[in-house]
Amino acid sequence: MQEFTKFPTKTGRRSLSRSISQSSTDSYSSAASYTDSSDDEVSPREKQQTNSKGSSNFCVKNIKQAEFGRREIEIAEQDMSALISLRKRAQGEKPLAGAKIVGCTHITAQTAVLIETLCALGAQCRWSACNIYSTQNEVAAALAEAGVAVFAWKGESEDDFWWCIDRCVNVDGWQANMILDDGGDLTHWVYKKYPSVFKKIRGIVEESVTGVHRLYQLSKAGKLCVPAMNVNDSVTKQKFDNLYCCRESILDGLKRTTDVMFGGKQVVVCGYGEVGKGCCAALKALGAIVYVTEIDPICALQACMDGFRVVKLSEVIRQVDVVITCTGNKNVVTREHLDRMKNSCIVCNMGHSNTEIDVTSLRTPELTWERVRSQVDHVIWPDGKRVVLLAEGRLLNLSCSTVPTFVLSITATTQALALIELYNAPEGRYKQDVYLLPKKMDEYVASLHLPSFDAHLTELTDDQAKYLGLNKNGPFKPNYYRY
Amino acid sequence: MQEFTKFPTKTGRRSLSRSISQSSTDSYSSAASYTDSSDDEVSPREKQQTNSKGSSNFCVKNIKQAEFGRREIEIAEQDMSALISLRKRAQGEKPLAGAKIVGCTHITAQTAVLIETLCALGAQCRWSACNIYSTQNEVAAALAEAGVAVFAWKGESEDDFWWCIDRCVNVDGWQANMILDDGGDLTHWVYKKYPSVFKKIRGIVEESVTGVHRLYQLSKAGKLCVPAMNVNDSVTKQKFDNLYCCRESILDGLKRTTDVMFGGKQVVVCGYGEVGKGCCAALKALGAIVYVTEIDPICALQACMDGFRVVKLSEVIRQVDVVITCTGNKNVVTREHLDRMKNSCIVCNMGHSNTEIDVTSLRTPELTWERVRSQVDHVIWPDGKRVVLLAEGRLLNLSCSTVPTFVLSITATTQALALIELYNAPEGRYKQDVYLLPKKMDEYVASLHLPSFDAHLTELTDDQAKYLGLNKNGPFKPNYYRY
Amino acid sequence: MQEFTKFPTKTGRRSLSRSISQSSTDSYSSAASYTDSSDDEVSPREKQQTNSKGSSNFCVKNIKQAEFGRREIEIAEQDMSALISLRKRAQGEKPLAGAKIVGCTHITAQTAVLIETLCALGAQCRWSACNIYSTQNEVAAALAEAGVAVFAWKGESEDDFWWCIDRCVNVDGWQANMILDDGGDLTHWVYKKYPSVFKKIRGIVEESVTGVHRLYQLSKAGKLCVPAMNVNDSVTKQKFDNLYCCRESILDGLKRTTDVMFGGKQVVVCGYGEVGKGCCAALKALGAIVYVTEIDPICALQACMDGFRVVKLSEVIRQVDVVITCTGNKNVVTREHLDRMKNSCIVCNMGHSNTEIDVTSLRTPELTWERVRSQVDHVIWPDGKRVVLLAEGRLLNLSCSTVPTFVLSITATTQALALIELYNAPEGRYKQDVYLLPKKMDEYVASLHLPSFDAHLTELTDDQAKYLGLNKNGPFKPNYYRY
Amino acid sequence: MQEFTKFPTKTGRRSLSRSISQSSTDSYSSAASYTDSSDDEVSPREKQQTNSKGSSNFCVKNIKQAEFGRREIEIAEQDMSALISLRKRAQGEKPLAGAKIVGCTHITAQTAVLIETLCALGAQCRWSACNIYSTQNEVAAALAEAGVAVFAWKGESEDDFWWCIDRCVNVDGWQANMILDDGGDLTHWVYKKYPSVFKKIRGIVEESVTGVHRLYQLSKAGKLCVPAMNVNDSVTKQKFDNLYCCRESILDGLKRTTDVMFGGKQVVVCGYGEVGKGCCAALKALGAIVYVTEIDPICALQACMDGFRVVKLSEVIRQVDVVITCTGNKNVVTREHLDRMKNSCIVCNMGHSNTEIDVTSLRTPELTWERVRSQVDHVIWPDGKRVVLLAEGRLLNLSCSTVPTFVLSITATTQALALIELYNAPEGRYKQDVYLLPKKMDEYVASLHLPSFDAHLTELTDDQAKYLGLNKNGPFKPNYYRY
Repeated sequence: MQEFTKFPTKTGRRSLSRSISQSSTDSYSSAASYTDSSDDEVSPREKQQTNSKGSSNFCVKNIKQAEFGRREIEIAEQDMSALISLRKRAQGEKPLAGAKIVGCTHITAQTAVLIETLCALGAQCRWSACNIYSTQNEVAAALAEAGVAVFAWKGESEDDFWWCIDRCVNVDGWQANMILDDGGDLTHWVYKKYPSVFKKIRGIVEESVTGVHRLYQLSKAGKLCVPAMNVNDSVTKQKFDNLYCCRESILDGLKRTTDVMFGGKQVVVCGYGEVGKGCCAALKALGAIVYVTEIDPICALQACMDGFRVVKLSEVIRQVDVVITCTGNKNVVTREHLDRMKNSCIVCNMGHSNTEIDVTSLRTPELTWERVRSQVDHVIWPDGKRVVLLAEGRLLNLSCSTVPTFVLSITATTQALALIELYNAPEGRYKQDVYLLPKKMDEYVASLHLPSFDAHLTELTDDQAKYLGLNKNGPFKPNYYRY
Repeated sequence: MQEFTKFPTKTGRRSLSRSISQSSTDSYSSAASYTDSSDDEVSPREKQQTNSKGSSNFCVKNIKQAEFGRREIEIAEQDMSALISLRKRAQGEKPLAGAKIVGCTHITAQTAVLIETLCALGAQCRWSACNIYSTQNEVAAALAEAGVAVFAWKGESEDDFWWCIDRCVNVDGWQANMILDDGGDLTHWVYKKYPSVFKKIRGIVEESVTGVHRLYQLSKAGKLCVPAMNVNDSVTKQKFDNLYCCRESILDGLKRTTDVMFGGKQVVVCGYGEVGKGCCAALKALGAIVYVTEIDPICALQACMDGFRVVKLSEVIRQVDVVITCTGNKNVVTREHLDRMKNSCIVCNMGHSNTEIDVTSLRTPELTWERVRSQVDHVIWPDGKRVVLLAEGRLLNLSCSTVPTFVLSITATTQALALIELYNAPEGRYKQDVYLLPKKMDEYVASLHLPSFDAHLTELTDDQAKYLGLNKNGPFKPNYYRY
Repeated sequence: MQEFTKFPTKTGRRSLSRSISQSSTDSYSSAASYTDSSDDEVSPREKQQTNSKGSSNFCVKNIKQAEFGRREIEIAEQDMSALISLRKRAQGEKPLAGAKIVGCTHITAQTAVLIETLCALGAQCRWSACNIYSTQNEVAAALAEAGVAVFAWKGESEDDFWWCIDRCVNVDGWQANMILDDGGDLTHWVYKKYPSVFKKIRGIVEESVTGVHRLYQLSKAGKLCVPAMNVNDSVTKQKFDNLYCCRESILDGLKRTTDVMFGGKQVVVCGYGEVGKGCCAALKALGAIVYVTEIDPICALQACMDGFRVVKLSEVIRQVDVVITCTGNKNVVTREHLDRMKNSCIVCNMGHSNTEIDVTSLRTPELTWERVRSQVDHVIWPDGKRVVLLAEGRLLNLSCSTVPTFVLSITATTQALALIELYNAPEGRYKQDVYLLPKKMDEYVASLHLPSFDAHLTELTDDQAKYLGLNKNGPFKPNYYRY
Repeated sequence: MQEFTKFPTKTGRRSLSRSISQSSTDSYSSAASYTDSSDDEVSPREKQQTNSKGSSNFCVKNIKQAEFGRREIEIAEQDMSALISLRKRAQGEKPLAGAKIVGCTHITAQTAVLIETLCALGAQCRWSACNIYSTQNEVAAALAEAGVAVFAWKGESEDDFWWCIDRCVNVDGWQANMILDDGGDLTHWVYKKYPSVFKKIRGIVEESVTGVHRLYQLSKAGKLCVPAMNVNDSVTKQKFDNLYCCRESILDGLKRTTDVMFGGKQVVVCGYGEVGKGCCAALKALGAIVYVTEIDPICALQACMDGFRVVKLSEVIRQVDVVITCTGNKNVVTREHLDRMKNSCIVCNMGHSNTEIDVTSLRTPELTWERVRSQVDHVIWPDGKRVVLLAEGRLLNLSCSTVPTFVLSITATTQALALIELYNAPEGRYKQDVYLLPKKMDEYVASLHLPSFDAHLTELTDDQAKYLGLNKNGPFKPNYYRY
């Protein structure tokens, strides 16, 4: 039991994790969540359920919701054609035949497409949720109905969370040989509780910043006895999750919560990394006047060249209509800033956690909080001034908008390829270390997504390839290329 | 009773009217609508309700919702500072003292701000709804609580609709002398049923295309015995309602319904008027590849110069991901086009009515309709192809997104000024005809909205005014100026 | 001789006229001007020249330059396919057969294409230059070689200017029946000197603001005994000459003179009419931070919605890197502003004349002027501060950049159609007044330019045309439509 | 003499080198080049010249042009305030005191500012030109007048080129201890001809792709006995030289050569690296319709998300108006493509050398070449079709437009800092290898350029720095950060 106390509390930490799939947890994100009836208060762990084939090798909220979940999965499939084409290309050879994958991710229509792709490629899968809130119950039901051993529901307790993970790993007559993780909890559990299983794992694929960080620490400590693949830092994931995804979602998140008009609004974006770049581009494109704050002179210079005034927050805080944080830092927006904002100023966070805005400083007696809509609070000063705080300073796009399925497709495809690579790699190619996806596979992920755009790649001639010193099939760039 | 049959059926026609305020009718648009409990099935006409001051001079769904509606009105006020400043500037002199205004508009937080402004300027108001679905019940309750004689609720029957209008006009000891109308129904009712009242009206202010059209017809027929102001064609309303408003709402409407990613999507926009221009600008800015269809060579040339390929719909119908109609025409998207679209193609309408897409042609036995979310239908072909139809071809931005309060503020301010102008105009300034708002007042509406942007106008020097042959206070442009 | 003094001085006024074709006068604009050898100082009036067919019915600088001029004309033809297609469509019927056109325009490759089109359509033409500097000598030579009676050269004196015009009109056995004018000088000359010729003119086509103004004055005074067509205010000309053309040329003019980098530059644009809109759009698109000044609240509101801060010039004058005037007003940039600009600030004018910047105020003893490049002066303050003044405050795009041939094609096509219309109109269609081009012909001009973009117009079905109440062939918009 | 043959031929290779400073070589780039009188045909090597202080330790075209050159240098200084501020900050300590720098770069106003900065920091400098055409003679004269030992003129012969380099290195009583090179010729010369000097060099700073490549080869071969700094791959240089600089110069290069209108033009850009991204962004922003070709699926996916259709060149070659190569590859545009282009299609190269367009294939008897302007050829097919070839396929922006001084300032500042770092580095910090500039210095270069934009950096608090695990003064990003 001591062991358990080392695990971070789910309720606190989980909601901060920057795993893009989490977006699906929100009530805005899809039809599925609207259908949740909260009248059924019996814990799934107490229920006896079987799917239509008589199996009860799962634990979900309500197996009867399977049909609705299946439709959501089908809708998701339409924007995840890369995985579908992977199914087609690799199905004959079943590259994951014999793979026994234990997985721990958000359970959404999109991850369902991934899980079913892994199955189609020959794998056996057992799955739990990496977040106690994020499971789409209907989708979990659909997976269970389709025969996947899934253990997850929306609103798990802390204890439920670890029980579900344990049910995936600890099963008679079945021993996992691959891990797909998002956050590192599953990996940690296997490492701690089932060291003998852990030693025989052929590969770990991890997608989150946090999980990757934990793997590097394990590796540094010399305790990582399994090759692991860091898919978080692949180019396609980085550019899509950050630059493009934020370009899409910042507008959406602001509109759904506040119906704000963008034209002519003065906005300050704190941080001009990929997330900030995406936010700035979208807001400028829709007619907002955007200011940028930066600590890094190189990013600041980019902001200048891109047409944004680079200022200190205190210079513009009195005049702006919207404040957006994208720094990964803490206390970027302080109480002092909040005190000086004008009436109706909107404050929100697109960065990596809820630390960027000092929300705690607003929980003082002289300020009144008024919840005006879901995820929207008015914080009211004694003089009547209102500041509009979104998602209590948590990630706006994960809380109040959706993430395009296409973006999730890129991550999911990367995960699938990483699993295939690790499972099939010849002895010795990967040591007991953390690896980045080989560039060639990053390029392959990209190429699988081009047909969605009806994009046609040019092929090098032999002569050109020789001139450039490249293989005609790639990789086409050195590792340090910045894109 | 005969008379009644001449009135268009509410259920059919009303939903087509291009009055921007209608947007508030949708469940997406504000918190208010979420609270509607449909369990109360008693007709408001049957209920006995009094407000806190003991008055029962109103008919709304539930007077107890007033507090919640008041908050919605207060939120709206924050983006309608032009009206608030009009209250301040004109309150001393009460320019509408003695005015008895009968109004028929959507009843939303935004129109409530208008109505209460009219009252603050000295007017007495009686109000009904111009749309059987669009009333925000809580807002109506708040108006009633504040003493406005309002007769409206969400979900009126055809009969209720006319009953409410009649209750506004037909009241002992009170005779309307001004009309504010949106759609022309109220005007028509007074004209037909109370000709003696009609003759004594000092002015009509009409905002909708339809209502203006009816006024011009009346005028042509020599039957308009009252001066009327066409606020629909004022510059600020046109540019904001169309160009800017659609630039804001096309992205919002598509995201909320389909979560579609814009980057790289191929989109065809039918029509390159102001609405089309707004849609194209927004979509291009977010990374879509946009094609345009046009019948007018001048607009087509503008599309070319703005960087859009001008094509016939049939040229690109097979390849596009989204089809948007903005023509004001009918059957722009035919069954033949729909048959040729690719799987998952999204089809929607931003134009003036639901005629642009031939939705009727899709109601045939071989096609299956599947309602996947509110306002989103999958129409499924026998081969499994799905076309995603939004709002059944009705206006996307009114059905599935919100309209910025700021835009509504411009229209409302124009209406208020038009009422003041007509009510106070010296005898003879306005004949029995339909007038456009004087350019100087159009400029005044604009100037009232500049402080929201902290925009500072430059003033002409005497010397410059003389050089330009202009009055220093405007008007600054000839009537034919195109902006 | 008295008469002459009423004519404005060429050297002064001419350079102010906003006739876009004037751009060709600058040394930047085309190869032709580079070849000017200034060693030949003999006045063309003194020379005896004949073309290869033995004709000497012209007066140009050097007939031997014809071949080079012909090549320039051919290059221009490639971007003026609308005129070429007009030649083809109308050539069979020769709609200008019998027309004797006397013209006075800039003489450039582009106008040469127009003149030769008129000839191809059956007209006889005699031509002089409307500007003493703007003639491309090689092009004039090519026209003369081709048989056009052209009287023009670069660097005419005031006396030469009127002599050339007179030589066009005053010729034995040939009497003009049509006038094509740019600036109104030719019209005025005929009106004053040859009243009997004037009375028999069937139509005047005038393109410039100034010329149109003079026609309206004549009309008001009841002295216009000839129908005249104002092509200056046609939609296509306005939008192309102003919005699009300035969007193209502001960057070009700044680069060619100063090599300034746009990224991150702070720019203030005075005036947000079509010219200002074009400048702002281009500069913002290239990464500049743009401020706008306006006197008109409607245009100011547009600037806000388009994402520009609206300020008074004095608020930003200390911080901006570039000041651009587009107002049509005078003394918009005063000496006081100039005193407060920062070192290296660039000042230039895109408006209608050289009055916008108070350049005269800079001609004081304490300031040093340094000509650093053609059209670029450094004005140096006693403390060493330099202000970079372009084109001495004259129009930047006409002085320092080129105007796309395509834009000139639109104007030229409009002129040709106006001539055809006036020449062939049945008796009584046009009275002795100034007319705008019929909208249908405006649309026709546009349609002739669509093939350049490979743009495909959609045609209305009978049913749609009926629904819209339109003729299938246009006109498609009411006259007041704003585009 | 054998040795000499190993050096590449200047006339051929030099013009290919991608050193951005080369832009100044073109007659468009500055006033200086216009003043070149070609009447003076005496070789500078034959002349006896002394500056006003009596020194003749230089060899330039004409020392009398010094004053004009000085003015050009002063103009350049205004956009190179980073170097000026470096002079101020470092002047007290003279960090280059004792440094004897031999340099070989383009000799332009901008490099003159660099050279004089090095002198101000305490260095002694001897300088030659890295390109036989690129020297601005007036600037060289100004440097010579100021006491710099400069050996360079425009139009050197191959023999002159090496003679100048030799005169810099081979001088009695002065031995170089630092090398600043652009292209590697100087380095190679010292390495080959003066091995004893080479061994005592304390550091080499190299800016060009080619020169860096040669250094890496030397290093691999174990023959690099000196630490060298690769400034070519610093972030600021890469982003500015490529993305931003091309965004600025593609429009300029096209306008100056062809006066083409961008609005509505169909353009294909081959290659979507930084150069391609810059070109595409600018062209799209000005209203062109842009297609992209790519071989790399990741870049192709970026192009899709940025709103460009990704095609094979052959798919669009018939319809495009402009073809731009930015690949670094060879024969990207083949004769077959050229044969299929439409009339008036413009073809140009923004990539790294003149190999991208197969210009050689156009030099066949059936095609006629017509030089219509400087750097503009019409290649005419037998059927009359013309293709407009710019700069004979060499780099457009270096041949036909200018590079903003500000961009050159970034490179020059980086070079200066690299020299200071290598010269002052403690023994052992740098081995005999090629190094990238430390990220912290890259950030310092950026920070020196922020004041030009009046940009204000935010500073981390101690608490924040600790939270992020960063030093408050940077570096702020890991080495692999992509910006």
